[in-house]
Amino acid sequence: MRALVAIDSFKNSMTSIQANQIVADQLAAHGISADQIAIADGGEGTVAAFLANQAGGELVSVATVDIVQHPITASYGYFADQQLAVIEVAAASGIQFVTDRLTPSQTNTYGTGLLIKDAIQRGARQIVVGLGGSGTVDGGAGILRALGYQFFDADDHELMMVGADLGQVARVETGQVLPALATVQFVNASDVTNPLTGAQGAAAIFGPQKGLSQAAIGSYDAAMQHFMQVSTGQVSDHLGDGAAGGIGFALRYFLGAPVQSGFKLVAKLSGLADRIQAVDWVISGEGQVDDQSFMGKVPIQISELAQAADKPCYLLVGNQQGANQAFAEHGVTAVLPIVDHVSTLAEAMTQGSANLAKMADRLARIVTAVSRH
Amino acid sequence: MRALVAIDSFKNSMTSIQANQIVADQLAAHGISADQIAIADGGEGTVAAFLANQAGGELVSVATVDIVQHPITASYGYFADQQLAVIEVAAASGIQFVTDRLTPSQTNTYGTGLLIKDAIQRGARQIVVGLGGSGTVDGGAGILRALGYQFFDADDHELMMVGADLGQVARVETGQVLPALATVQFVNASDVTNPLTGAQGAAAIFGPQKGLSQAAIGSYDAAMQHFMQVSTGQVSDHLGDGAAGGIGFALRYFLGAPVQSGFKLVAKLSGLADRIQAVDWVISGEGQVDDQSFMGKVPIQISELAQAADKPCYLLVGNQQGANQAFAEHGVTAVLPIVDHVSTLAEAMTQGSANLAKMADRLARIVTAVSRH
Repeated sequence: MRALVAIDSFKNSMTSIQANQIVADQLAAHGISADQIAIADGGEGTVAAFLANQAGGELVSVATVDIVQHPITASYGYFADQQLAVIEVAAASGIQFVTDRLTPSQTNTYGTGLLIKDAIQRGARQIVVGLGGSGTVDGGAGILRALGYQFFDADDHELMMVGADLGQVARVETGQVLPALATVQFVNASDVTNPLTGAQGAAAIFGPQKGLSQAAIGSYDAAMQHFMQVSTGQVSDHLGDGAAGGIGFALRYFLGAPVQSGFKLVAKLSGLADRIQAVDWVISGEGQVDDQSFMGKVPIQISELAQAADKPCYLLVGNQQGANQAFAEHGVTAVLPIVDHVSTLAEAMTQGSANLAKMADRLARIVTAVSRH
Repeated sequence: MRALVAIDSFKNSMTSIQANQIVADQLAAHGISADQIAIADGGEGTVAAFLANQAGGELVSVATVDIVQHPITASYGYFADQQLAVIEVAAASGIQFVTDRLTPSQTNTYGTGLLIKDAIQRGARQIVVGLGGSGTVDGGAGILRALGYQFFDADDHELMMVGADLGQVARVETGQVLPALATVQFVNASDVTNPLTGAQGAAAIFGPQKGLSQAAIGSYDAAMQHFMQVSTGQVSDHLGDGAAGGIGFALRYFLGAPVQSGFKLVAKLSGLADRIQAVDWVISGEGQVDDQSFMGKVPIQISELAQAADKPCYLLVGNQQGANQAFAEHGVTAVLPIVDHVSTLAEAMTQGSANLAKMADRLARIVTAVSRH
């Protein structure tokens, strides 16, 4: 018997890779082999998920800089045979670099740009950029500079393109842009739908968590509008441009990247649908399933693929809200909540991995017993 | 597909009959027929369980008296074809008749004796007496009087045999005992192992909940010892004699009743082992399973029967404490806790029947899916 295990992370409890391994180990103890697919959402763990899902990848560590140009070493995933790189914005431009003394005015994404440049020079022609966990609000200008774009102010001085420079841009120069850039297909791995500017924009919504004071949001947003106006000739409210402090905008407008959810990428690049065909049943799950799950959350996307392939699909979850039949209509054979006794949320979180193992063991026992009889 | 459902009560939440029906309804919705066996523990619901388990029984209502000789109507179960009666002590001598103004000194089990007498006169030759929920501490003397035993004091006055009379008994007369009594096989359905007297005796342990003051326990216990001494020629600490305020003693010594757990009786009289052979899988369960379950609790006794018959067995439970493997060694395919999200005990109790239904539905979906693939 063979199963495919593709469980989303249990927030604050287990990563997708950890959850998959816990379940696979339990199945193995009952003689059931498990194909594992790690789920990625574009945030931390996206590179690890891609490397776990497919052979032929390597973790490339390179010298780059953090959000204030301090030298650091950061890593990305590279699949030479596919000329595919997977880069997390969080690696060099993440929120972990923000300190009490920094505001977005002083920081940028230049370090992420260096990672992208390194990947292109290594041969990458497809680059997935995971936008979760960024610590900057620079409209992606730092990335663009690292790739050769040049930004000048009204006095024709070149700008470093930290946040404070956004309002000063008078002209964009493309003469030094990396020639290979034209041959690279970028993908923006993100679920964020905020526009670049305005009340739902990058500064207003994501600025405060990155050190922007409430008082400064207005002028910061105006500077971002100015940057967009100068760069594109207009101010638009394109959905998704505001992701990762505006990296969404740079990826879309300058680098031509379509937005794809982390899951869609994983599904495509890992050949998920074919791998479901190759197994007898499927296991997914996550911390909670509820009405929102039917709005496209990972476990239900997987159960729908299982349904299309006529394979039983089980969801191992922390909490189930909603009727069994509602899930069945999306291909879920059974939602299996892993809590095994009355417990507080804190207990349930602490016992998450043990409870997950226990439920996987139960499921293996049931399937084995029913198959045998 | 056919299952056997035999779930013990979920204390303070669902009776065995209710739990079985909830699960059977869910299985039926998936085309799985269910044979139901209600679990009885000798307490309230024992008669209902026997009547539910076997055809041919009727609920017989007769005029009798309560613990202070007030006329009441009470019921017992009668299976004419088997000459079998099932009588709950609680029906005529239950704790529900105890009031603030009553102590065990004033009450007895005469009413239960009248039920037994009625059953014998109706033709019963096997009488199961369920000892749970009694409201008296009369050593079963009231029952004995109703069957013709006579108790006299030192002045040769016949005693009514309320609790206050226990210490006055000087002589027992058997000349008026119902002749048919010799042909009746009694069974004491009880799990209580207390002796009749002493620190673990009926007065000390069960007296207080029936209105006996702490100060009165000592003299009450001495009177009970006297009663035993006069009746049997000695004071013994026979385990189980203390059940139901000493009815255990009367059933054992005067009526020759062996003690059997409610479950063993149900298993024997319902043909449980054969009925397990006739189905594809078995469902049991109860409010909680834990280390104590292996000490002979109902769900594990059922899983062991399923194991002997090589049938998968699932336990639907409120709480699971303990490792899956420990249960597997007793024939449990999987323990399935019914809580489906983090919740308080109060919530879990309130949602008990809904959660049980939901888990039964999941199990039916899994078994159906696995069977089909």
